[in-house]
Amino acid sequence: MIPCPIIENGISSLPPATLEILHSLDHFIVERARTARRFIKESGHPKPIAELDIFELDKHGKVEGLKDFVLKAKKGLSIGVISEAGCPGVADPGAEIVAIAHREDVTVSPCVGPSSILLALMASGMSGQSFCFNGYLSNKKPALIKELRSLESKANKLKQTQIFMDAPYRNEFLLSTCKEALRPDTKLCLAVDISASTEYIKTKKVSQWKSSEFKDFHKRPAIVMIG
Amino acid sequence: MIPCPIIENGISSLPPATLEILHSLDHFIVERARTARRFIKESGHPKPIAELDIFELDKHGKVEGLKDFVLKAKKGLSIGVISEAGCPGVADPGAEIVAIAHREDVTVSPCVGPSSILLALMASGMSGQSFCFNGYLSNKKPALIKELRSLESKANKLKQTQIFMDAPYRNEFLLSTCKEALRPDTKLCLAVDISASTEYIKTKKVSQWKSSEFKDFHKRPAIVMIG
Repeated sequence: MIPCPIIENGISSLPPATLEILHSLDHFIVERARTARRFIKESGHPKPIAELDIFELDKHGKVEGLKDFVLKAKKGLSIGVISEAGCPGVADPGAEIVAIAHREDVTVSPCVGPSSILLALMASGMSGQSFCFNGYLSNKKPALIKELRSLESKANKLKQTQIFMDAPYRNEFLLSTCKEALRPDTKLCLAVDISASTEYIKTKKVSQWKSSEFKDFHKRPAIVMIG
Repeated sequence: MIPCPIIENGISSLPPATLEILHSLDHFIVERARTARRFIKESGHPKPIAELDIFELDKHGKVEGLKDFVLKAKKGLSIGVISEAGCPGVADPGAEIVAIAHREDVTVSPCVGPSSILLALMASGMSGQSFCFNGYLSNKKPALIKELRSLESKANKLKQTQIFMDAPYRNEFLLSTCKEALRPDTKLCLAVDISASTEYIKTKKVSQWKSSEFKDFHKRPAIVMIG
């Protein structure tokens, strides 16, 4: 499992140990072949990219010719799994392949790399002793309000940080609905453009966000947390 | 927020971007001064360790002379936060300091590094679209059984991977109670010695773990997941 950078020109966000493993592999299962090829090339892979076997997952996270892969892996072939940005299998495709590997008794090993969820949590000041990543919430306002209030109540009751996200073009909708739905005293953390030079990570009470219209965050990748 | 290695001699698990920031800092708030000094030295920090300001958190995760720190940080001093192993603030102290920083409008920025929770999840083949880290469960058997069944039901109902851990010397107790409490069809992932040469990560149905006595995992750091 090979993470890739979450920002442009982000190879320096990958540890030498991860690059060493990446460079030892010739076979890859990837979310998107075009970007994976670019990443592998930028990482300084010793082989010409055209000589590598790169298999793309389909939109359901499945890979064509999976049986062949499993057979080869069982015979000892090492296969890298790479998603579009960040950690494969975490808010990204990859878990299905890994589940098959476990069923077939193929060893799976994870490499260190960036995860916007983990980075956001680390910098939020919210509890990292207990936390929950809820993925994408509803894009319909009444349902979203209900979900947010349910997460708020879970956050309070379990002292558990609730993490979620949305498609970047819906940030303004998500955040203004947070302001509307949540209690003034609830803490809301907004983490935008994590690891980029434009990184913005701020935790404030909902009441302190009131004057913000969140227009600046339009189309910028964001992780939102309540706690 | 500066992660540190989760294995011995693990500096190569840290990205150049993280080391660059670590090496630019002279002031640190750390979980334990002795290990932090060793880590900073091993990382190749350009200054003599004796010249660095290293402040230790107390057992409540607080730091003596915090007001001074806050005043200095508000004036622009950069301070690194380092925990014992892995990511500060994530299943480790650090969040309280960060919460104060946010209250005082001090910028907080996270660096990439290893997190055993994230690495375990990535390699588990369980859902990374929705997951929950529950920290330490009860060390009393009846309460633990109740908690495990509640997590199992959450995992099924919400399709949410439930992650937890225990003190390494209680692994055998935790895992044999899992076998006893959980349904045969529930998937149980055991991730031990993550990133080390002795790494063991395996996902099986509870029924398939039945013959295992888990004696081999005694005192080895472990992350357990159900899904």
